[in-house]
Order: sequence, then structure tokens, then C-alpha cells
Amino acid sequence: MSAMNRKLIQNLAETLCKQVKHFDKAEAECLIRQFSGLLGEQAERRAAHGLDRVRFRNILHNTFGMTDDVMMDRVFRVFDKDNDTYVSVKEWVEGLSVFLRGTLDEKIKFCFDVYDLNGDGYISREEMIQMLKDSLIRQPVEEDPDEGIKDVVDIALKKMDYDHDGKVSYSDFEKTVIDENLLLEAFGNCLPDAKRILLFEQHAFREPHEH
Amino acid sequence: MSAMNRKLIQNLAETLCKQVKHFDKAEAECLIRQFSGLLGEQAERRAAHGLDRVRFRNILHNTFGMTDDVMMDRVFRVFDKDNDTYVSVKEWVEGLSVFLRGTLDEKIKFCFDVYDLNGDGYISREEMIQMLKDSLIRQPVEEDPDEGIKDVVDIALKKMDYDHDGKVSYSDFEKTVIDENLLLEAFGNCLPDAKRILLFEQHAFREPHEH
Repeated sequence: MSAMNRKLIQNLAETLCKQVKHFDKAEAECLIRQFSGLLGEQAERRAAHGLDRVRFRNILHNTFGMTDDVMMDRVFRVFDKDNDTYVSVKEWVEGLSVFLRGTLDEKIKFCFDVYDLNGDGYISREEMIQMLKDSLIRQPVEEDPDEGIKDVVDIALKKMDYDHDGKVSYSDFEKTVIDENLLLEAFGNCLPDAKRILLFEQHAFREPHEH
Repeated sequence: MSAMNRKLIQNLAETLCKQVKHFDKAEAECLIRQFSGLLGEQAERRAAHGLDRVRFRNILHNTFGMTDDVMMDRVFRVFDKDNDTYVSVKEWVEGLSVFLRGTLDEKIKFCFDVYDLNGDGYISREEMIQMLKDSLIRQPVEEDPDEGIKDVVDIALKKMDYDHDGKVSYSDFEKTVIDENLLLEAFGNCLPDAKRILLFEQHAFREPHEH
């Protein structure tokens, strides 16, 4: 709270709840207050820009239960829309609107952006391999792990590559997930599960609503 | 493969694919072979009964990426339908049919059974607290954590307890999840995610189909 005064927070909440979906003004205010608290733990110079990568990854890990390094880095990059290496308060609230209350469409867009590692509009074979390889190592493996990965990528492409160009476009991914929702997070967990969402909302929105 | 001969496996596959949904005979055969391999690592006397709790939990952790102790124990209990403290080959294939290819209805039934810790047909406040308390500790906490849990349980009951009897019946849970699919795993991850399913199926079903 020390970083922003009450008036400023109310003003910002007023603006944000109009620009960002799924939160009303009181909720936006709670999220801004919470953000201010999270920033408080960062050195002042950095706090002015927003949450840095390390701090943001800690939140993904501790609060949202994420464990995959590739995914946590990608989620940071997708939250950080202006690509300035900090997640600002607006970027935080925008990201949370998908995390906590996103529609299926919004989540498809989010996951696709996470999985499109180089941002060229396609999930390529190489990108799939990069996202899947860490998980495969934990499988009981009797054979060449690279062979195993290639097979998984082939299966993924068979399910997803509707236009048969050897890579997954946004439209391919959208069709796939609408047909089988479970495939939303096919290449890695990048959204919080229901339990974490419940716990997060309880923590964030309890005050000042109920006191 | 040493534990069962080819003829026996084919015979069992023939029977199981009729009794268990979602797998054809060739797939059932693959799962039986794989089960036989998993058993191979257990001492012979125990292997005769099936997978013991420790071995089964290792599979949940390493292959299906589960981390929550309460959930892993409960998943073991739900797989172990005859309650003899071992998961038999039939119980393994039955459980996997929900894990890998379950319909929403089958998954609702599975998760409810996992969450109904004492098997009395209801998810009670006390059961919710037991399932949620380990996650809450990781939240940034400035206040009494027991208070936080009580609030989360209140929110969960508000969302789920349609008949207002202070606990969640199967029918309450079913209505809740059909209305909002995301709440399927509200009290903890007990089903594998899409990535793990892809990897598992690739590993289990590759042979002898494709070679």
C-alpha cells in the first residue's frame, strides 16, 4: 500500500475495470492493492517498472503451482505485452483476467501465445520438442529418448495440423481445442488449476469486500 | 513380459477390452504388457497381487506428474476397487480408461470418489479442509491460515452445495462441474494433464502397433 495512495488506486481501478474484462471496480482495486504489496518486496528502482522476471516466476510457482521452467518463462513473456521485461499493474490485471476468469476462447489465445515460442504465428516441430523434452525424461525409458519425442510430436501433429503444412497455426490449434478441450494445455501447464484459482480469489478479493 | 506369457496376455486382453471402456484389444494388450513390466520391478511375492501403494504412487508422480500426497493416496484407493491394497491388472486398465480417455461423466465420478475421503457419499467441510490446507500454506499469508481455509471452504460450499445441507453430495458435485467444467479438480489434481496423456499413450501403445 505504501507504493500507491488510496486515491490513485481508486482512479486506476476505475480505468482498468473498463479496459480489462471480467473484473468489476472493487475487484480491480483489490488486485491493484495486492500488486502493490507484491512490488513492495522488490527494490524501489525496479518496482517502478513492475514485477521483474524472477519475482513473477516465484508467484507462478508458489501461488499458482507451476513447475515447468520453459512454461514459466513463456507465461512471463505473454503477460509482459509491451516486452519491457517487467509486468506492469495493467499487464498483471490483464493476465489475471485470463488466468482466473478467461473464456475458452481467451484461454486458447493465451496458450497458443505461450506455445508459439518464437512468436511467428505457428507452433513448429522444434518448438514442440523443446516444450515436451523435459517431461519425457521422467518416463520409464528403454530406448533412445529422441525417438520417443519424435513419435509424440508426430501424434500431436496428426491431431492438430488440419491444413497439413507440418506446423500448428492458430486456426489449427483453435479447431483442435474446441473439438477436445483437454488439449488446451497439450504442450505444458500454463494456466492455474481450479484449486489455485479458488485460493487466489479468496485471498485477493476478501478485503475490503467482507470487512 | 517374463511374468506372463503371450497366450495368457492375449486371452486377458480379449476379456478386458469387453469389460473396460475405451480400449480395443490391441490397446488392452499393450497396457497388460506394460503392467507386467511395471510389476517386474516388484518382489515376486508382492507382484502376484498387483502394484503396491509405493510403486503405484511412484508411477503417479513420475509418469503422471502428480505431487500432492493426499491426492496420490486417494487415487490409489480409487484404483484399488476391491480394497486389497494392490492395484491388479484389471484395476489398472479400468483406472487408465478414465485417466486417459474418460468422458466428463466418468471423470466427475472419479474425482468425486477421490474427494470423498471417508467414502460416505459426501464431500464434507472437514474433507475440504484436509485437501486444501497443504496448498494454502504456500500462499503469501499475513493472517491466521485457518481463517483463510474457512473462507475458501465457504466459497466452495456456496458454489457447490445446491441443496444447502452443508456438504457436497454427488448430485451437487455433478451439477457444479457440468455448469463449470473447470471445477472438476477443485480440491486437487487427481487426473493427468493432456501432455502426460500424450506421452503415456505414445509410450504404451507404440508397440506392437507400429513395429
